[in-house]
Amino acid sequence: MKIPKYSREITAFQGEKGAFSQEAVRLLLGPRAEALPCQRFEQVFERLQRKEAGAAVIPIENTLAGSVHENYDHLLRFGFPIVAETRVRIVHNLIAPPGVPFRKIRRVFSHPVALNQCLTFFAKHPEIERVPFYDTAGSVKMIMEERLTDAAGIASALSAGIYGASILKRSIEDDRQNFTRFFLLRRRGWRPARRPEAPKGWKTTLVFTTRNVPGALFRALSAFALRDLNLNKIESRPLRGKPWEYLFYLDFMGRPDEESSRNALKHLGELADFLRILGCYPAAG
Amino acid sequence: MKIPKYSREITAFQGEKGAFSQEAVRLLLGPRAEALPCQRFEQVFERLQRKEAGAAVIPIENTLAGSVHENYDHLLRFGFPIVAETRVRIVHNLIAPPGVPFRKIRRVFSHPVALNQCLTFFAKHPEIERVPFYDTAGSVKMIMEERLTDAAGIASALSAGIYGASILKRSIEDDRQNFTRFFLLRRRGWRPARRPEAPKGWKTTLVFTTRNVPGALFRALSAFALRDLNLNKIESRPLRGKPWEYLFYLDFMGRPDEESSRNALKHLGELADFLRILGCYPAAG
Repeated sequence: MKIPKYSREITAFQGEKGAFSQEAVRLLLGPRAEALPCQRFEQVFERLQRKEAGAAVIPIENTLAGSVHENYDHLLRFGFPIVAETRVRIVHNLIAPPGVPFRKIRRVFSHPVALNQCLTFFAKHPEIERVPFYDTAGSVKMIMEERLTDAAGIASALSAGIYGASILKRSIEDDRQNFTRFFLLRRRGWRPARRPEAPKGWKTTLVFTTRNVPGALFRALSAFALRDLNLNKIESRPLRGKPWEYLFYLDFMGRPDEESSRNALKHLGELADFLRILGCYPAAG
Repeated sequence: MKIPKYSREITAFQGEKGAFSQEAVRLLLGPRAEALPCQRFEQVFERLQRKEAGAAVIPIENTLAGSVHENYDHLLRFGFPIVAETRVRIVHNLIAPPGVPFRKIRRVFSHPVALNQCLTFFAKHPEIERVPFYDTAGSVKMIMEERLTDAAGIASALSAGIYGASILKRSIEDDRQNFTRFFLLRRRGWRPARRPEAPKGWKTTLVFTTRNVPGALFRALSAFALRDLNLNKIESRPLRGKPWEYLFYLDFMGRPDEESSRNALKHLGELADFLRILGCYPAAG
């Protein structure tokens, strides 16, 4: 495939145009970044690998639903460095074609996770049927294409703008403490035009396995605790081919070229069977 | 709802009859246990709560796909004690109506996870289309009901027997190291007729939160490491209402009425904001 000249500006993301991931693309790369929708997470990684995109944006965890475990697996397999993170507050809006009033709405389409995050709204409106759909923004796209007059979608405000739909009700989510954290990925060897600033410090994400002995994880964490390095997150994933053993993904505050972090990583390297740094980037908060 | 006399013998599980969860029911409760299929995991818990079942069997982790995170959330919310665990090797079989030969198969239905675990088979047979379906055993049920003559399902050997279908090819999964671990749950206050034996020792599952300070998880794990108690697994889940804080689910070898475990739990209680024991049961291996 011919690589277009502007490929470095194209950013792959999963979902339809208007997905929350596209909001993350804007936050990470500015309003002029060209967002390239992909159906599946794996395709987002493949686009970056085949140089059809110069960057990729993936969700890694949500404060209600938890980690996007599939993306942890892809991070390890593809090995693209994480160069930035951001957080998007998930605001669910009820969106219908222009001119369709709220009282006409009988069906609401959206991704099952989004439907489940708006239970208060549905309890208040028992006459409205919930219809699971493959994507949040995709539900708005479909409703506009089909020109449905009794249906709405639940999606981002951005998707209403993109498909020319109207927001009937804003922020119908049950829990406003609903945030998704996203990573910006580049290909190996990519260098920023200028060194980014990190007013809230640097964060490093790594993956390791321990020997399968008592206290192994405790000793691994001691590499950080004994140096007062703060862990933000730890996530376990099954280790293929070794049933009941695990990979650990860990975020800590620090950067590998600082002395205490360097020593911690050296210490962890002595204890771990396997260790790889997935990225170092300015912390979002 | 009237509670049938034999309700204590009924065991709720998720999936259609013949699902791998039903194999777990057999392993945990013997061949005479009556398995009650439920569509969703939450319904499995609700059946036990409403006394429509006397026991529930849920998958908690798979050695390829990882934890069933939704069930960790339900364990905490419903509070049913875990009283046993078992492991089922996931063997995927190609199953069709009797008399349909392999060379006629053009479509294969199954749960997307099962389809993805048989990629070698599909690579060898590019003429066969993969069709995602809601359930493994459900795909066999549907093929038999519809009497399809060009289609097969991928499911357990048990499901072939239940629906009167034939196994065309056995064990077509890519990776034989594919196991699912299941928990047996009872209502609070349930007591076994006789104390179970634990030839491989006792395992305890608990959930806790730490104060959000550097080294908190390290100190929590020290309660076990300093007493040479072996951790089998740790899993993090988001803490609702506190973005970027986590609940930790932990399995360790020991039982709370033994001295070292009792001391470890007391120690962990000092360090944790919240601590609950979810169950203590004979380890499966």
